[in-house]
Amino acid sequence: MKFQQKLNGIVAKNNSLLCVGLDPDLDKLPKHLLEKEDPIFEFNKEIIDATFDLVCSYKPNIAFYEAYGIEGLKSLKKTLEYLQEKCPEIPIILDAKRGDIGNTAARYAKAVFEYWNVDAVTVFPHLGKDALEPFLKYDDKLVILLIKTSNPDAGIFQNLQVGDEPYYLKVAKTVKEWNFSNVGLFVGATYPKELADVRALFPDSVFLTAGVGAQGAKTEEAVKAGVDKNGGNFICNNSREIIYASTEKDFTEAARTKALAIRDEINKYR
Amino acid sequence: MKFQQKLNGIVAKNNSLLCVGLDPDLDKLPKHLLEKEDPIFEFNKEIIDATFDLVCSYKPNIAFYEAYGIEGLKSLKKTLEYLQEKCPEIPIILDAKRGDIGNTAARYAKAVFEYWNVDAVTVFPHLGKDALEPFLKYDDKLVILLIKTSNPDAGIFQNLQVGDEPYYLKVAKTVKEWNFSNVGLFVGATYPKELADVRALFPDSVFLTAGVGAQGAKTEEAVKAGVDKNGGNFICNNSREIIYASTEKDFTEAARTKALAIRDEINKYR
Repeated sequence: MKFQQKLNGIVAKNNSLLCVGLDPDLDKLPKHLLEKEDPIFEFNKEIIDATFDLVCSYKPNIAFYEAYGIEGLKSLKKTLEYLQEKCPEIPIILDAKRGDIGNTAARYAKAVFEYWNVDAVTVFPHLGKDALEPFLKYDDKLVILLIKTSNPDAGIFQNLQVGDEPYYLKVAKTVKEWNFSNVGLFVGATYPKELADVRALFPDSVFLTAGVGAQGAKTEEAVKAGVDKNGGNFICNNSREIIYASTEKDFTEAARTKALAIRDEINKYR
Repeated sequence: MKFQQKLNGIVAKNNSLLCVGLDPDLDKLPKHLLEKEDPIFEFNKEIIDATFDLVCSYKPNIAFYEAYGIEGLKSLKKTLEYLQEKCPEIPIILDAKRGDIGNTAARYAKAVFEYWNVDAVTVFPHLGKDALEPFLKYDDKLVILLIKTSNPDAGIFQNLQVGDEPYYLKVAKTVKEWNFSNVGLFVGATYPKELADVRALFPDSVFLTAGVGAQGAKTEEAVKAGVDKNGGNFICNNSREIIYASTEKDFTEAARTKALAIRDEINKYR
């Protein structure tokens, strides 16, 4: 099934554009989980159990697993298998920010779409078309290009002026000309003007954003700028505010309460 | 020890600017190795044993390991441990092409410099300064920024005109102003003009290049453009021509012969 169909199904079912970022950090986990054999997997499992009827996607950022080496990646694998069994209708985005020349990009694409077996991946567009094609040929998967990142310094290079437009927009326009069917776009919610500009270029594509909440973006501005004409195709990630809503034994209830509040806040502006 | 000192030591000892890329592909490995318990590690070990007195660095590209999932990453770990024991004086570059916002970049930096425990890593500069700092704070390590990649389509975005200069050069100039001591620069050998331009900006920094041989770059042009005033600080990677010089039982002799020839060819133009 194409990514976009899968997304539309769960957006309707859960009435949600909220994506929960599964970015575990052992220093922030509730203390009682540290006694478990695999604290990261246990944490993720409990967060998933508490939120799976409130979200349209889960997004593990692989950096948080790589930081713990092969043991961390085993926890990621268990988490992905758990998601695929527990809620196969929810698309999984692996936030891996990959990118390399064609021959090597094909190895990354094999890793994310065959080994990790996820529905979407984030990719750097800056290497050009031949470096994106190995990802894009998996045509039921979504390849989310990093057009404008959410960090404070994102504009240093991404907003450099190229002719009469900023670099990020020139990149987006060029990608649009290539006319791939399974391109998604990432624009940080911290930059609602950029988000609106890229949405105008890609009226029917799937957008991913992040930064609402923990990074200080305003929900109303971001949602209005990011949704399509039907109020959808917009995946709004939040990690820290939800998964670390409490770091005590009540963390699952706290995560659910926060996820519900953010879901409803997003829906108010769709 | 700082990366640059370590590099200078081995460049002098082995009289070499050659880096061998350890990019194993099970479809290309000599057939007799496939019967071993860990064919990827066995292959790497034999390539290392055959070339360690001819190189200034080894560069595994992590994509080739990730493609085989956790098993592939175990082979990478064994390879790195073998290198650190067999030839601790040879710096290891993990070609991982990472990049993310600050909080997450810190997790990638922990993975590459603490878990994988390598001497250098390749990183995308396009997210700006705050996304590079978590890598750069490991000040005995080298953070190699991808300024101009070696692939045919690299120029689509990297050569966009920003004012009176191309994007890649604007990025390089901006990075230079930040004045970090442990920045390295990657420019593909397929673009000798770009290589010369970036070298002029960073006369004393360590450069990494790739594409001599398999990607069709001319050694003479690339070496003359890439070396510093003393004919050094230039790491010239070759993967496929060396490691797959033969795919029969004589692959180690063939790899050694090829490595020797490329090392000497590079030295002719230093």
